[in-house]
Amino acid sequence: MDIEKIVKNIEFHLELVIPKHPFSEVYRYGVLPPGKAFRPQLVAAIFNDYSENKDLSFLDNSHSPVNYLASAVELHHAYTLLHDDLPSMDDDNERRGKASTHIKYNEWKALLAGDGLQTASFALLSKFNGKNLSLMLKFFSWALGPKGLIQGQYLDLSEEMTKGIDQLILTHQYKTARLIQASILLGFWANEKERPKEEFYRISKELFRLGHCVGVVFQLLDDLTELVDNELTQHEIAVNPWLTNNSEKCFEEILTDLEKIESIIHKENLATTKSVLSNYFGKIERLLTNGEDNIVKHSKVDLVPVISLLNRINR
Amino acid sequence: MDIEKIVKNIEFHLELVIPKHPFSEVYRYGVLPPGKAFRPQLVAAIFNDYSENKDLSFLDNSHSPVNYLASAVELHHAYTLLHDDLPSMDDDNERRGKASTHIKYNEWKALLAGDGLQTASFALLSKFNGKNLSLMLKFFSWALGPKGLIQGQYLDLSEEMTKGIDQLILTHQYKTARLIQASILLGFWANEKERPKEEFYRISKELFRLGHCVGVVFQLLDDLTELVDNELTQHEIAVNPWLTNNSEKCFEEILTDLEKIESIIHKENLATTKSVLSNYFGKIERLLTNGEDNIVKHSKVDLVPVISLLNRINR
Repeated sequence: MDIEKIVKNIEFHLELVIPKHPFSEVYRYGVLPPGKAFRPQLVAAIFNDYSENKDLSFLDNSHSPVNYLASAVELHHAYTLLHDDLPSMDDDNERRGKASTHIKYNEWKALLAGDGLQTASFALLSKFNGKNLSLMLKFFSWALGPKGLIQGQYLDLSEEMTKGIDQLILTHQYKTARLIQASILLGFWANEKERPKEEFYRISKELFRLGHCVGVVFQLLDDLTELVDNELTQHEIAVNPWLTNNSEKCFEEILTDLEKIESIIHKENLATTKSVLSNYFGKIERLLTNGEDNIVKHSKVDLVPVISLLNRINR
Repeated sequence: MDIEKIVKNIEFHLELVIPKHPFSEVYRYGVLPPGKAFRPQLVAAIFNDYSENKDLSFLDNSHSPVNYLASAVELHHAYTLLHDDLPSMDDDNERRGKASTHIKYNEWKALLAGDGLQTASFALLSKFNGKNLSLMLKFFSWALGPKGLIQGQYLDLSEEMTKGIDQLILTHQYKTARLIQASILLGFWANEKERPKEEFYRISKELFRLGHCVGVVFQLLDDLTELVDNELTQHEIAVNPWLTNNSEKCFEEILTDLEKIESIIHKENLATTKSVLSNYFGKIERLLTNGEDNIVKHSKVDLVPVISLLNRINR
């Protein structure tokens, strides 16, 4: 499936909608290039999987509503990164291999650009004129608000997250999964096809679960791939959940979530979404395979079941 | 007119909708008490002025959509204040007579609470289920986004604002008037009464102008009342636009705007809105009258026409 075409389309559309005022340069720096563009890929993929023709025809129409929704999700993501990196938050000087926005420009510009990107994400949402706008706005603002993403940031910054495996999963759920759930559900709701109410809610619930599992797995795999080096820094040893006595629970969580992902993709026949996830899981699978010796040495976890599940999804 | 009842209703409703997660205390500290609650008063007043019965009956129904919109506007306002006060922005240790949120708690909590309040303001907007939701979301996110409020912040922080009277008015337009325009238009659009399209747009445009004038006058009067002291600090002398060679233009702008406000209130028969504005202008009028000698001494501006215009609106 044409993941590359989807990503090019996302980058093209971001160029169109990125705010021009008052400091276009700061916004561009914070948003572009958009890393993996994983979240907007999910918007587009799910949209395609539930569309009539499943032929990616929205790629030919830069004013297709799904493009605005994909960009909305990416701008919202970018705002969280700009704020995350600020000195009072994570105090990160680097992001995606370049200086963080507040290092390149200054703190107030990074803070203000983040604020502007959040507002702009809602402006892009408002470009969707269909009947599901109200539902989208309700879910988006709930998932990314005080009970969602903001709560995840809080658990992270207050160090609640490190107090146990439950708090860790909860943090991933709020801080990462909520935006992924919003991406997936926006993609589904952007289809205006009439469905019986029950079917509509059944699919919405199923996709809510899919987004949860993808979000949690995304973070746990990320932590796991950080163990590929022979020697770890003291900081890595202190924060990586795979190195504490929680590693067994992380292991169980990842297997359960990957199985659910596989089952939902199969049941809902999500071919495009499967391509997007396989593209990502494939990279992780290669990293884990190449780094298996070190990862097992550090974490004492058997990687075989994880790698074989990733491989099964990727097939 | 029952301004006091309106304000009590706003405070009551804010208590209901203020975010409870993850740090209810920080949100409460940043939002309550809500100062003058000037913006939500405008939402409520305009709503009442265009409603069928004009009898403030929404005050008896805490789930009336207009209450959610009024709270949305106030939470959005509070977010801008929390971020404004941060060290990298205005670096203010005090707000409304108490320690700023980042002083009382810490920087990341104030920053994150601000982010959460912005998202929460959109969640409250989404409680409005009427046909104008799409229009509201478009205007709200435009007015408060990169081309609006954010641009105003930029002009202020980059010190563009101080480069001339045009830049000053532009800053007030973006930073202050846009949120006031949003308050006024949300109040009008919350009425679901069917109107001919032309009338709907004519009124919307008229109220857009009203909000512009109120916002600009609000700031210029604020600057003027700061001159009531006999002696001014060096900082006040450096930044107050009434003390530079722009004072004549500020004077003309304030008179023009006040005349427009008077004319729109009259033409549109905005009785409740007039009460809200009179309540505010009345306080300003008293301040100016009591401090007239000092203000004239500092600014060399004749206050009589301003005071008499304020008085005429307040009658």
